[in-house]
Amino acid sequence: MKILATLAVSLVSLTAALPASAQFNRPDDAVKYRKAALTVMNTHMGRLGAMVSGRVPFDAKLAQENAQVVAELARLPWAGFGPGTERLSTGAKSEIWTEQAKFKEMGERLGADAAKLLAASKTNNLDALKAAFGATAGSCKACHDSFRNM
Amino acid sequence: MKILATLAVSLVSLTAALPASAQFNRPDDAVKYRKAALTVMNTHMGRLGAMVSGRVPFDAKLAQENAQVVAELARLPWAGFGPGTERLSTGAKSEIWTEQAKFKEMGERLGADAAKLLAASKTNNLDALKAAFGATAGSCKACHDSFRNM
Repeated sequence: MKILATLAVSLVSLTAALPASAQFNRPDDAVKYRKAALTVMNTHMGRLGAMVSGRVPFDAKLAQENAQVVAELARLPWAGFGPGTERLSTGAKSEIWTEQAKFKEMGERLGADAAKLLAASKTNNLDALKAAFGATAGSCKACHDSFRNM
Repeated sequence: MKILATLAVSLVSLTAALPASAQFNRPDDAVKYRKAALTVMNTHMGRLGAMVSGRVPFDAKLAQENAQVVAELARLPWAGFGPGTERLSTGAKSEIWTEQAKFKEMGERLGADAAKLLAASKTNNLDALKAAFGATAGSCKACHDSFRNM
């Protein structure tokens, strides 16, 4: 009984210390989630891209709405790249798991860029938006180049 | 030439008046987007659900982070249910398109509930969170009952 009780306490401690990936019941839930978060973020980056490239007219309110979603979503996908999810997606390079520090740093850089993008979207200044969008899109691309199979 | 010019002007007017669905290049982009937004929202509702049901300990900061994502995401999926997307998902009932007013109203109700959920998450009061979570989950379920194939 004592061993069982000790084990139970250990399991509780383990649960409390579980990494973000363990927020998912199954590894394929984590993969589905991270893909979903990236899809939503990419859609709103695309709308901003259309605006900064002039394909659609600049609309400060819409720009801010899109930047808000990007800033919110930029924090989310990374928890879905936990242990056990390595072989569940052909899009993710194994370097994500062998170069964890670099991957984490790139995720954090995107988060910082997206926060600046949101701030820029609130200035009503298209040039400021363009610059911040370019930096954010550059962070997306840099991470894709290193960690995504094309 | 005059007919062509008139047509061109009409097309420009049409583009300006296009519904939200036209933010997507192709109908299947819209379906992928709406599913992604619902997946992300559902994941964070699940984390709040685990907390309010006592399966994981109440953590006010985490509750607020999750409610923030739910409130942000609750606005998004509906633009993906535009014309041309009716037959692209087996999960969506045809009533979405034949009962548009009801569908729209239910989406708006979820948005309002999610805003209250976010406000409740900022009170640090588990009972307030439980009540707001129950209302939000009830709105999810009511819409699924009417508009989602199980």
